[in-house]
Amino acid sequence: MNILFVMYDQLRFDYLSCAGHPHLHTPNFDRVASMGVRFSNAYIQSPICGSSRMCYYTGRYASSHGAHWNGFPLRVGEHTLGDHLRKAGMACWLLGKTHMKADAEGMARLGLAPDSTIGARQAECGFDAWARDDGLWGEGPDGFYDEKRSPYNEYLKSRGYDGENPWADYANAAVTDDQIASGWMFRNADQPANIREEDSETPWLTSQTIEFMEKTEGPWCAHVSFIKPHWPYIVPAPYHNMFGPEHVPPPRRHTVERENPHPVYGAYMENKIASAFQRDEVREKVIPAYMGLIKQCDDQLGRLLDHLEATDTLKDTMIVLTSDHGDYLGDHWLGEKDLFHEQSVKVPMIIYDPRAQADVTRGTVSDALVESIDLAATFVDAAGAKVPDHIIEGRSLLPWLRGETPQWREFVISEYDYSVTPQCEKLGLEPRDARLFMVFDGRYKLIHAEGGFRPMLFDLAEDPDEFHDLAKGDTHNDQIDRLYGMLAKWGRRMSQRVTKSEDDIKAMRGKSIRKGILPFLFDGSEVPDELTEKCRGPARQRHSGNTD
Amino acid sequence: MNILFVMYDQLRFDYLSCAGHPHLHTPNFDRVASMGVRFSNAYIQSPICGSSRMCYYTGRYASSHGAHWNGFPLRVGEHTLGDHLRKAGMACWLLGKTHMKADAEGMARLGLAPDSTIGARQAECGFDAWARDDGLWGEGPDGFYDEKRSPYNEYLKSRGYDGENPWADYANAAVTDDQIASGWMFRNADQPANIREEDSETPWLTSQTIEFMEKTEGPWCAHVSFIKPHWPYIVPAPYHNMFGPEHVPPPRRHTVERENPHPVYGAYMENKIASAFQRDEVREKVIPAYMGLIKQCDDQLGRLLDHLEATDTLKDTMIVLTSDHGDYLGDHWLGEKDLFHEQSVKVPMIIYDPRAQADVTRGTVSDALVESIDLAATFVDAAGAKVPDHIIEGRSLLPWLRGETPQWREFVISEYDYSVTPQCEKLGLEPRDARLFMVFDGRYKLIHAEGGFRPMLFDLAEDPDEFHDLAKGDTHNDQIDRLYGMLAKWGRRMSQRVTKSEDDIKAMRGKSIRKGILPFLFDGSEVPDELTEKCRGPARQRHSGNTD
Repeated sequence: MNILFVMYDQLRFDYLSCAGHPHLHTPNFDRVASMGVRFSNAYIQSPICGSSRMCYYTGRYASSHGAHWNGFPLRVGEHTLGDHLRKAGMACWLLGKTHMKADAEGMARLGLAPDSTIGARQAECGFDAWARDDGLWGEGPDGFYDEKRSPYNEYLKSRGYDGENPWADYANAAVTDDQIASGWMFRNADQPANIREEDSETPWLTSQTIEFMEKTEGPWCAHVSFIKPHWPYIVPAPYHNMFGPEHVPPPRRHTVERENPHPVYGAYMENKIASAFQRDEVREKVIPAYMGLIKQCDDQLGRLLDHLEATDTLKDTMIVLTSDHGDYLGDHWLGEKDLFHEQSVKVPMIIYDPRAQADVTRGTVSDALVESIDLAATFVDAAGAKVPDHIIEGRSLLPWLRGETPQWREFVISEYDYSVTPQCEKLGLEPRDARLFMVFDGRYKLIHAEGGFRPMLFDLAEDPDEFHDLAKGDTHNDQIDRLYGMLAKWGRRMSQRVTKSEDDIKAMRGKSIRKGILPFLFDGSEVPDELTEKCRGPARQRHSGNTD
Repeated sequence: MNILFVMYDQLRFDYLSCAGHPHLHTPNFDRVASMGVRFSNAYIQSPICGSSRMCYYTGRYASSHGAHWNGFPLRVGEHTLGDHLRKAGMACWLLGKTHMKADAEGMARLGLAPDSTIGARQAECGFDAWARDDGLWGEGPDGFYDEKRSPYNEYLKSRGYDGENPWADYANAAVTDDQIASGWMFRNADQPANIREEDSETPWLTSQTIEFMEKTEGPWCAHVSFIKPHWPYIVPAPYHNMFGPEHVPPPRRHTVERENPHPVYGAYMENKIASAFQRDEVREKVIPAYMGLIKQCDDQLGRLLDHLEATDTLKDTMIVLTSDHGDYLGDHWLGEKDLFHEQSVKVPMIIYDPRAQADVTRGTVSDALVESIDLAATFVDAAGAKVPDHIIEGRSLLPWLRGETPQWREFVISEYDYSVTPQCEKLGLEPRDARLFMVFDGRYKLIHAEGGFRPMLFDLAEDPDEFHDLAKGDTHNDQIDRLYGMLAKWGRRMSQRVTKSEDDIKAMRGKSIRKGILPFLFDGSEVPDELTEKCRGPARQRHSGNTD
């Protein structure tokens, strides 16, 4: 069996028709959901691209792998999905985005050549790169945001798009009045991107994926990682005008949220992106483009499914559809991701397992508390290996797919490090104090903030929109204490004992005594002779050590 | 300046005359204490050799580096004292014991050759080994406990001691009735070891150290790490009979400790070593030998000090004397270390800093809450480098040595993983649940046990002997909650973000906007033109991407 591990970037959990979106019809996502299981309570471990992805790719919490934010290198030697899968006999390929930053200092310290196979995998988060393109070719007075090469820009140039950065000038720009109208500017979000649709980012990566599948022998896991519907919010025709302001729901926000908000939330509500998304004209331009980008993703997913069917490989291919985080789109007075409302921290998670054991669950929805780190465990399990649960902190979802009801976690954790952001400076925090932790038990959601702030608390049963922060008063201290207990338990988890498995430990027991470590003997009668034979030593007839 | 980082193994904090021992006179320890500062509240981070040492050598908690027990490899790439010191221009040498187990699997995964410089340092916990000898050459039906070569055994052979394992047959054995009387057996602890005193372990390593100092240019840090007074408890003449049963204090234990004990404590009170030390005849044989071993350590320390004085290098040498953990010696009905009574978890910590700034504190005692991980920070600070506090979790003690009163930690943490032990099996625990955590605030000591047990609590102000476990009732829930809050705070510490320092993070701020990441623009008016110039692009006269 192969695994097609498809990630969309910044795809909100509720912007799919199978998840109930009233206007956005996504028949191909729905088709996979009908063949598999849609997990309706799937949470990412950090609501920011890089950190979330490192959690997916290691199966470990952000505080366990340490890559807490975009551009924080994943330290050399951290075990990745690729390491585990290769050990299980499955290749692990990358097509698209990871947001991985190599630990160049650590690699140099260990003498790992970046161009060696080991070095390249270390630099690519354990993947073998079929095509790595992080999809953000922003450029400013200090140069490119991303200093790597861009296969996508190279493709565009090969297709005749001119200039140094056709990603910016064509794929993410319109033309108005014979001028480039940048996709960075929300004003232009309702314009068609100035590119042939088939050359835009999502079709390009889809074509790469089909080519990959045609050329590559299995078993493989392929991480197909689209940059879209991530900003810049602009999409080529015909997707640019499939949706209009009439399809834009009113923002889910409440004036009570602005009354005495938690200081961190308050700071985020005042940042540039939030301010933009608080304007109706922004939402009315951006959300239709966002929907168009998703519609394009859905059509391209259809291409992939059709290819699998045409090649009769759907029956041998596990398909996983998910995202690295959501997008506020103006809900809760916010733009982007970053905090822990459902719009940001919950993601789509659809898994199709072609094997017969999964027949019993096809087309069902599971509300199990899923964490993104569960996928690494799921894939290792699917590859037929024992999940190394002293390294991977997630749990295999295969039992759920088989209709079983395993004993399961009681809460999910997510973390956010905002030390690099203006909000940290605004709040006067040292970097290490700019950290948030979410613990959610399926009903109550507690957000703890380092730095001496009070927590936040939401009751999603009574207040599914998460408008009412119950930690503003002192009426819910029992719930707060209970969830803090869960967070404390998680804080004591065993996350770094990665060199010894549970089985290794059991096998170690009793070994030292059989290797002569006997610090409890009075006269040797305590244990069988064979254990003390060596320490009794040979009879000594002639000399002692002191006098010879 | 050079650093002589001297560690004794299993040296109890109170078995020195400067710490108040009534019978054991240790003039050379006292001499260093009179030149420097004795820290009377120094705690190790794990009461077991290997794990404690990995904390010393990384400056990180056991849960941060993951080497929770003897023989659990320190994972490849973990930063060590040697890494930090070499970066600061100071060599970092090892003489003696570390209990380091190399992460052979991790090194193979990263392609590190064990015989390369990098590989050798990885395998030696970051040290350059002048002489590595872990000092436990126990041997049984399954072979040697330690599979490495033993420089000490080689030395003994070169001195004419015969057999394959003169460590066992001479250095750690007596001769009675022409038979080897093994030092493993407490019955023989009052016999003289069958070896010339100058060939025994402590003088051997002392000679190695003097030779090292004569041959090595500074600046260096030398970890001189004696195996003694660790068991086997046997010492050559004249030390074997310097002390007798009349110098053995009554055991510090109380019948109340056996009434409804905490299950983990109860299991330890019933293990083989505890049972042995509950016998008076064992204590009366072993403790005089233990004292003799310490007396020998003191005399050998005198040799080192004399050498430093004779070579006029005392003025350029920081000296640190400490231990990896203590020894119950029958107190609390226990033998060995393992749990968190002061006898086990508190260690001697004497620091002499030759520099003038330390003149104000010479001969003083500090009761600051010190953790063993502070030494790594202290040494980096002493080497003149900034302490990388995103990696090293300890704090430099230099301010204390200079008479300052820095803002300091409110509690110390220690951890113990007993998953390999019979106690884990006896209690029916899975390996990952066989973990204890101590939090001590200078008065109250809480011990949390994973696995669903109640905690333990001691009030050292009211009950300095730690006989009365206040968590047996429910009278101290407020204190228990308070200390659990400290443990939870510690559990949320940022320990793995080792690839970005606080300064790195501050320097990252505002960078992405200057590299064209602008996901908040409506029309570009929000920021200066220079930031949006690239996304406006060149005027486009002839063609669009869609139609060319």
